[in-house]
Amino acid sequence: MKSGETELPEYSSSDEDFVDPWHVASKSATGIDYDKLITKFGSQKIDDNLITKIENLTGKRAHHLLRRGVFFSMRDMHGILTLYEQKQPFYLYTGRGPSSEAMHLGHLIPFIFTKWLQETFDVPLVIQLTDDEKFIWNDITVEEANRYAHENAKDIIALGFDINKTFIFSDIEYISSCPEFYMNICKVQKLVTYSQVKGIFGFDVSDSIGKISFPAIQAAPSFSSSFPRLFKSKKDIPCLIPCAIDQDPYFRMTRDVAQKLGGVKPAVIHSTFVPALQGVQTKMSASDPNASIFLTDTDEEIRIKIKRYADSEGGINMTDEHKKRGSYLTDISYQYLTYLMTDDDKFTQIERDYACGVLAREQLQEILIKLLQKIIGKHRQNRALVTKEMVKQYMTPRNLECSIVT
Amino acid sequence: MKSGETELPEYSSSDEDFVDPWHVASKSATGIDYDKLITKFGSQKIDDNLITKIENLTGKRAHHLLRRGVFFSMRDMHGILTLYEQKQPFYLYTGRGPSSEAMHLGHLIPFIFTKWLQETFDVPLVIQLTDDEKFIWNDITVEEANRYAHENAKDIIALGFDINKTFIFSDIEYISSCPEFYMNICKVQKLVTYSQVKGIFGFDVSDSIGKISFPAIQAAPSFSSSFPRLFKSKKDIPCLIPCAIDQDPYFRMTRDVAQKLGGVKPAVIHSTFVPALQGVQTKMSASDPNASIFLTDTDEEIRIKIKRYADSEGGINMTDEHKKRGSYLTDISYQYLTYLMTDDDKFTQIERDYACGVLAREQLQEILIKLLQKIIGKHRQNRALVTKEMVKQYMTPRNLECSIVT
Repeated sequence: MKSGETELPEYSSSDEDFVDPWHVASKSATGIDYDKLITKFGSQKIDDNLITKIENLTGKRAHHLLRRGVFFSMRDMHGILTLYEQKQPFYLYTGRGPSSEAMHLGHLIPFIFTKWLQETFDVPLVIQLTDDEKFIWNDITVEEANRYAHENAKDIIALGFDINKTFIFSDIEYISSCPEFYMNICKVQKLVTYSQVKGIFGFDVSDSIGKISFPAIQAAPSFSSSFPRLFKSKKDIPCLIPCAIDQDPYFRMTRDVAQKLGGVKPAVIHSTFVPALQGVQTKMSASDPNASIFLTDTDEEIRIKIKRYADSEGGINMTDEHKKRGSYLTDISYQYLTYLMTDDDKFTQIERDYACGVLAREQLQEILIKLLQKIIGKHRQNRALVTKEMVKQYMTPRNLECSIVT
Repeated sequence: MKSGETELPEYSSSDEDFVDPWHVASKSATGIDYDKLITKFGSQKIDDNLITKIENLTGKRAHHLLRRGVFFSMRDMHGILTLYEQKQPFYLYTGRGPSSEAMHLGHLIPFIFTKWLQETFDVPLVIQLTDDEKFIWNDITVEEANRYAHENAKDIIALGFDINKTFIFSDIEYISSCPEFYMNICKVQKLVTYSQVKGIFGFDVSDSIGKISFPAIQAAPSFSSSFPRLFKSKKDIPCLIPCAIDQDPYFRMTRDVAQKLGGVKPAVIHSTFVPALQGVQTKMSASDPNASIFLTDTDEEIRIKIKRYADSEGGINMTDEHKKRGSYLTDISYQYLTYLMTDDDKFTQIERDYACGVLAREQLQEILIKLLQKIIGKHRQNRALVTKEMVKQYMTPRNLECSIVT
């Protein structure tokens, strides 16, 4: 869903953090102020009470991305938990903008969490690949965008989503095969004005009508009526959307029109951004290879990137700096470990040692390099096992299994 | 394709004729100045040379709608005739906005002429029913718009289009079944900006994003690549669009982007509007039953409407008035005969008699009433014979027969 553009639009204020689906930038050395973003977007902070409630209801320990504040904001999560408590169905919806063949670490995080949500709540999942959007925004052909969608689907499948509960779709293919989906797109397009998308997304008069009307296409999968073959034509199954917070504008718009078009307002759970290798002031971006760890990177490429780019001061003795309490929090190697190290005891120990200077930055980088090599190496192996036939299966509309959806 | 709105937009000048796809209005007692419209739109007048050329090439007398100046303007018709001369293929594309169940006389005229073009040049024809557009513009449900499309298809089929050479499609159904069509829509949407549709169609910021992006959907059928199953995947077959001139803005836009997206600029042939019963200052409109002769009107309704509405002065002795040369030209009954009376000798005689006052207006009205009752009565009969199965056949994408397209 992200375009990879980095130049900030003119209307962005120079002092504040700037976040929209195409730009993420902060002037602060500590990166985006996510609490301010919650206030600005009008969402709610995920607090300890909510995390405890999730743990109590599911009988499972909360995912480390939830406990460590990576998923930090939400809309209507309590409503979703009430549904779960009452054994009422809901489904998950997330997506990816296939702007290139290679996905990076930043793309992986929401999918890892989505998989946990699917397994924990035992619910169906739809994954939108916005190849139409990527064709419209980027300098690629429509055939390339569609091919990227299929390549990205392989990466997503490699994460191990349950084929009986997961539908992956390319917009181009699904719009041109499902009237109910297209009708929902029309319904959203009828209810949203140019003024509104200008206000929400910052479009201006020089933007293409494709860009201007696209938000309706990202909105439509929030309604179960867009998936008659998946949900036995049930039109009112609520939806929970895990996504990075830059995608929230789409779903604010969706929630505004939901009731007018006879749908249910989708709930949303937002993550922070995986920062770029160069620092916390912007996010990892596919358009800058030096800012990103790709899922296709070799062990050697991972080592070089972390050593060369992860914090330009890399290699110096950080002990003095570490004494300034909290400074390690903006260290990119530490941040990446927050996202990736699932072993809590080990992570806490590393955090403690690094904060007080027992662990040098070089050592921390070495731990991260090994972990990344392991995770990405395993991903490369899994991806190699994904066949065209498997991609076709995941991308075929069919009734999705779910213990609750009947 | 027309919405039936009658209130003029604010930006329309108060002195000039106003014509766009949703509004037709003239302050002049003689109605729209079509020569001025040609200059304004930048199209070319159909002159005697072109008509003679058509007759010489096809070996057929030109259709009375062409000879009587109803089809009066064009773009690239000479190019189409060159193709015909060289036995190169082209196809016809026209359409209808299904805003109501009943079609009226004004809707019929372009289809009558299109049928003649199809028979004379022996070419395939695609007919777009813009149910998505009508849902977005009007206060109807998407299901109603789609149902109107099927009802309107029956009226179109009743005119006798050759099933082996004609494909009728609802946007909702065809977009959601043909990826190539949707991809062409995306290609147009990528190339056209909000500024451009604002300039061409007069949209403003309060218009829905559905309205703003729709022009791409009316543009896409101009490219044969939108119909792989019809044209054996041939992507470069040129297109000729017969339509009322209020639809020209769509095709000006289409011609502007055609080459950039790898397509051929469509040729266009424009008709005047069938005037409303009340006079030549505006066109017949489905939203005003008293302004229109519907294809569902009974013999009695036809009689009442012509007597009551066709010229408010109806019934007075017109002899004096007729002496003012040319005044009969704006007489609605005379105008309708121009569109409908195929017998040239009879028409010329009536014209002469009416112009000099030998034929009274009441007599002229009587001739029109009888002719309308015959035409619409026959249409009602033909329409009653159109089955759901036939509609399905016409609306199924399949290879279209044509002596030239190979």
